[in-house]
Amino acid sequence: MKCLMAEVNFSEGRDQALIDQVRDAMLDGASIDLMEISSDADHNRTVFTFKGDPEAVLAATKRLSAKAVELIDMTTHSGAHPRIGAVDVVPFIPVKDVTTEEALEICNAYGKFMGKLGVPVYYYEDAATSEERKSLPKIRKGQYEGLKEKMADPAWAPDEGPKEFNAKSGATVTGVRFPLVAFNVNLQTKDLDIGKKIVKAVRAATGGYQYVRAIALALEDRDGIIQVSMNLTNYEKTPIHRVFETIKSEASQYGVGVVDCDLVGPVPVYALQDVLKFYLRTHRFSLDQLYM
Amino acid sequence: MKCLMAEVNFSEGRDQALIDQVRDAMLDGASIDLMEISSDADHNRTVFTFKGDPEAVLAATKRLSAKAVELIDMTTHSGAHPRIGAVDVVPFIPVKDVTTEEALEICNAYGKFMGKLGVPVYYYEDAATSEERKSLPKIRKGQYEGLKEKMADPAWAPDEGPKEFNAKSGATVTGVRFPLVAFNVNLQTKDLDIGKKIVKAVRAATGGYQYVRAIALALEDRDGIIQVSMNLTNYEKTPIHRVFETIKSEASQYGVGVVDCDLVGPVPVYALQDVLKFYLRTHRFSLDQLYM
Repeated sequence: MKCLMAEVNFSEGRDQALIDQVRDAMLDGASIDLMEISSDADHNRTVFTFKGDPEAVLAATKRLSAKAVELIDMTTHSGAHPRIGAVDVVPFIPVKDVTTEEALEICNAYGKFMGKLGVPVYYYEDAATSEERKSLPKIRKGQYEGLKEKMADPAWAPDEGPKEFNAKSGATVTGVRFPLVAFNVNLQTKDLDIGKKIVKAVRAATGGYQYVRAIALALEDRDGIIQVSMNLTNYEKTPIHRVFETIKSEASQYGVGVVDCDLVGPVPVYALQDVLKFYLRTHRFSLDQLYM
Repeated sequence: MKCLMAEVNFSEGRDQALIDQVRDAMLDGASIDLMEISSDADHNRTVFTFKGDPEAVLAATKRLSAKAVELIDMTTHSGAHPRIGAVDVVPFIPVKDVTTEEALEICNAYGKFMGKLGVPVYYYEDAATSEERKSLPKIRKGQYEGLKEKMADPAWAPDEGPKEFNAKSGATVTGVRFPLVAFNVNLQTKDLDIGKKIVKAVRAATGGYQYVRAIALALEDRDGIIQVSMNLTNYEKTPIHRVFETIKSEASQYGVGVVDCDLVGPVPVYALQDVLKFYLRTHRFSLDQLYM
């Protein structure tokens, strides 16, 4: 059965009545599997994560977005998280039996829909129309407050929708990407420099693994621990266990051990297949054998 | 959502038309999730594995069993696998949010149903009415051919159903047990004695782990490999990784390495939680985070 996931990030994390209205609009149609609603008042932002049949997910994303665009006014929005619009970022994520091409069709249909609603749209990641636009931070640089000026630059003409700034709704960034795995490794050290050296060793930007983004930080709630906080952007090509073993090995040269690790948020079960194969040597194991 | 699994073992593995009739009877009611049908002509035996709502699973097991009892005549049955009746063994296995007590209620209701059909019933494992009857091999000892004589012994009076031998249907053994994990470790050696020494180290019967049953054998289709073939009968109390690490360690004293391993048949995803915690140190990871 085909399964596509959507993570809709929209710019309201405080007004529960508004969030409920958006949720109700989303649920008012063909059934999808609502996995998580995560609101952050500080960020003033909510993320709806859901999955299901690709067409059903597209329809739910449209309903959700139309309601959010109707109710959210960016001219009065403030929050700690970077954002560029009322419906800020919408990645479509192939989970099972959905090709990148199929996901791109869904994403493009969604982009055109938002354009018709009067919202400028940028495609990012695998849906990007140029190398420059692959990166969400680059598209979002300057944020909502800088969007009017940015859009005046022909290099930043939207991919869909009006070429003019939409003050109420800002812009929407949508795209297709592989499922992320958020994986944190906690090191038994107070020395942030050691964490930074390990980050350098594993992340793509400094010569490490191609599909690792990483930062090092001191954990506020756990004294004497430095965390290497990572997003693995393609667990098939850069699997969890390989990154973990490299970090253990790199840390050992400083006499530093790994206290524990965290897998944060939803984790595709497929990402664990290679972990099991590596550690248990179960090379013939298929996830079809799993039941829960 | 509550989930109970049943593994119905019945004594026909050759007559596909008969097997289809049994399957159709099973499917003719409230929906259950049919996980696997496995027929073995040599064993002359079929195993239906299915799961779902406990009451739905009970009803499907009843329909299946009534049809098998109707169609199978044990007086003409032969096959390589030990068996005592037409519906030979029916374990009920709590998978999710089902207590042993709830599973026992289902099992006892099923036992009474079979008794009313005229089939003598023995309860085994967690449903056993005495210590002696916990063991399937003990109940099945003497097989169908020895059942008439066995039942004449007051010590082997059935737990449900008629006290007289039923020539057409034999007897049925039913019970409740924890999900099994079939885990095989393949050793880089031709020396069966090394395999036997490792079996001795890990299995309960010889001082090893409480919930491990194990044998050593030479693999016919892979030259120069000895397999330690195991059933882990309680993966919570004796987890996979601990048994695996012990085998690696024991094998190393003979200079023997582990080539690879096999997880055979259905594996409850819960059995992998401890594996992940051990190897990835993800002590806060919950299976609720997994999606597929």
